[in-house]
Amino acid sequence: MRVAVLYSGGKDSNYALYWALKQGFEVKYLVSMVSESDESYMYHVPNIHLTELQAKAIGIPLVKGFTSGEKEKEVEDMKAVLEGLKIDGVVAGALASEYQKRRVDRVVEELGLKSFAPAWHRDPVEYMRELVEIFDIVMVGTAAYGLDESWLGRKIDEKTLEELVKLNEKYRVHVAGEGGEFETFVRDAPFFKARIVFDEVEKKWNECNYSGILEVRRAHLERKD
Amino acid sequence: MRVAVLYSGGKDSNYALYWALKQGFEVKYLVSMVSESDESYMYHVPNIHLTELQAKAIGIPLVKGFTSGEKEKEVEDMKAVLEGLKIDGVVAGALASEYQKRRVDRVVEELGLKSFAPAWHRDPVEYMRELVEIFDIVMVGTAAYGLDESWLGRKIDEKTLEELVKLNEKYRVHVAGEGGEFETFVRDAPFFKARIVFDEVEKKWNECNYSGILEVRRAHLERKD
Repeated sequence: MRVAVLYSGGKDSNYALYWALKQGFEVKYLVSMVSESDESYMYHVPNIHLTELQAKAIGIPLVKGFTSGEKEKEVEDMKAVLEGLKIDGVVAGALASEYQKRRVDRVVEELGLKSFAPAWHRDPVEYMRELVEIFDIVMVGTAAYGLDESWLGRKIDEKTLEELVKLNEKYRVHVAGEGGEFETFVRDAPFFKARIVFDEVEKKWNECNYSGILEVRRAHLERKD
Repeated sequence: MRVAVLYSGGKDSNYALYWALKQGFEVKYLVSMVSESDESYMYHVPNIHLTELQAKAIGIPLVKGFTSGEKEKEVEDMKAVLEGLKIDGVVAGALASEYQKRRVDRVVEELGLKSFAPAWHRDPVEYMRELVEIFDIVMVGTAAYGLDESWLGRKIDEKTLEELVKLNEKYRVHVAGEGGEFETFVRDAPFFKARIVFDEVEKKWNECNYSGILEVRRAHLERKD
C-alpha cells in the first residue's frame, strides 16, 4: 500500500504517519496544505519552515500545496495535489471533526483511493497517553481559557497531560485539543532520524483574545546516534 | 504534457518554469532537492523557506525531497521523488554543466520520462539579457574574485549585467554564474501571482574565501494587482 500522509507537523499527523509505518505502508509523500489566508497573504519566516524541517528529519519527501483558504476551495486544491501522486491511499490524523473527516473522505474516494484515519474516535486521554510516551510534543499555540502564556513552549508529557485532564474538568479544555484549544509540534518520534532542537523562540501572547503562539525563530537538527 | 520542474528558486529554474508554461505544459509540481550536507546537518531558518514562498507566490505545489548529499546518492534520491509523480516529463534549468545534465537525463530516462533543458548551451549574455527583462533577480550568494560584498543583495538588471560582462573580461566571472560564481533568487516573474518582498536581510561575508551569502530573515508576499 503506497500512501500519502496528510501532514501538518502536530501530534495527530505524526500519529497518522507512525501508524502508517507500523502497518508496513510505503509512505511516499507527506502532504501539507498551506493556506494563503492564514496570515492574510503575509508570510513570515518563523514556523512555516518547520514541517520542512520535520520532513527532513524523517527523510520522506514533503509536498506543499497552496490554497486560497476558502473552506470549500481548500478541499479541491488538496485534491489537485493528491491527484498527481502515484499512491493507493491517504492517511489523515483526523480525531474528532466530522466536518474535516467527511471532506477528506470525499476527495480521497473521488480519486479512487483508500482513506485511513487511525485516530478517529479514539478516547482522547488514552490516545494522548500513548502519544506522550512515543513523541516529544511541544505546545506551540493556545486558544482556550485555562491555557495561559506559561503553556506556550511547554513539553506535553505525562505530568502536563494530568494538568490538561484537570483543566478539562474545570474549563472543558479538550485533552487532545480537538476543539482547537491548542496546537502542537512534534520535535522527535521513533521514525525521526534526527531530532529537532529549538534554538530561539519567542512567545507571542494576545491578552485580548487569550491566545498565543510560540514563534520558532531558529531551529536545527541534531543527530540521534 | 504533464511535467515537474526542478526548482531551486534561482534564475535558471525560474526560466525552466517560464519556458514550460510558455510551451503550454501542465506544470504539476516544482521539485526541490534539499541536501543534508549543505549545512553539515545544521538547518537554519533563513533562506530555506524561500523556495516555499516562491511556490506559494506561483501557486504550484512544491515537492521537497531530501538527500544525504553524496553526489551519486543525490541522483537516486531525486529519482525516488520523481518516481511517485504522475508526469510525462521533467524540465531542468541546466545551463552549462555536462555533469549535472547527464545525471538528470539518465534518471529521467530510466523513469521513461522526457527531459527538457531549455537553457542548455544558450549564449550566456543573450540569455541573461532576456532574464533581466522578465524577472526580478537578486544576487543572494557570491563566490568569485571580482564579486565583493557590495554584490550581495544587488538586483541584476541591465546595468548590473553590463558590470558582470566587464568582470568577465577582467576576472573570468561567468556572466550567468555557470561556474558557481554566484547564486540568484527570483522575487518576481510574469507567472508569480504575488511578488516577494524582503523585509530583513543580513549580509554574511567571509573575507578568507572571498565569498558571501545574503541571509533573508524575513520576507512576505505582496499582491500584484
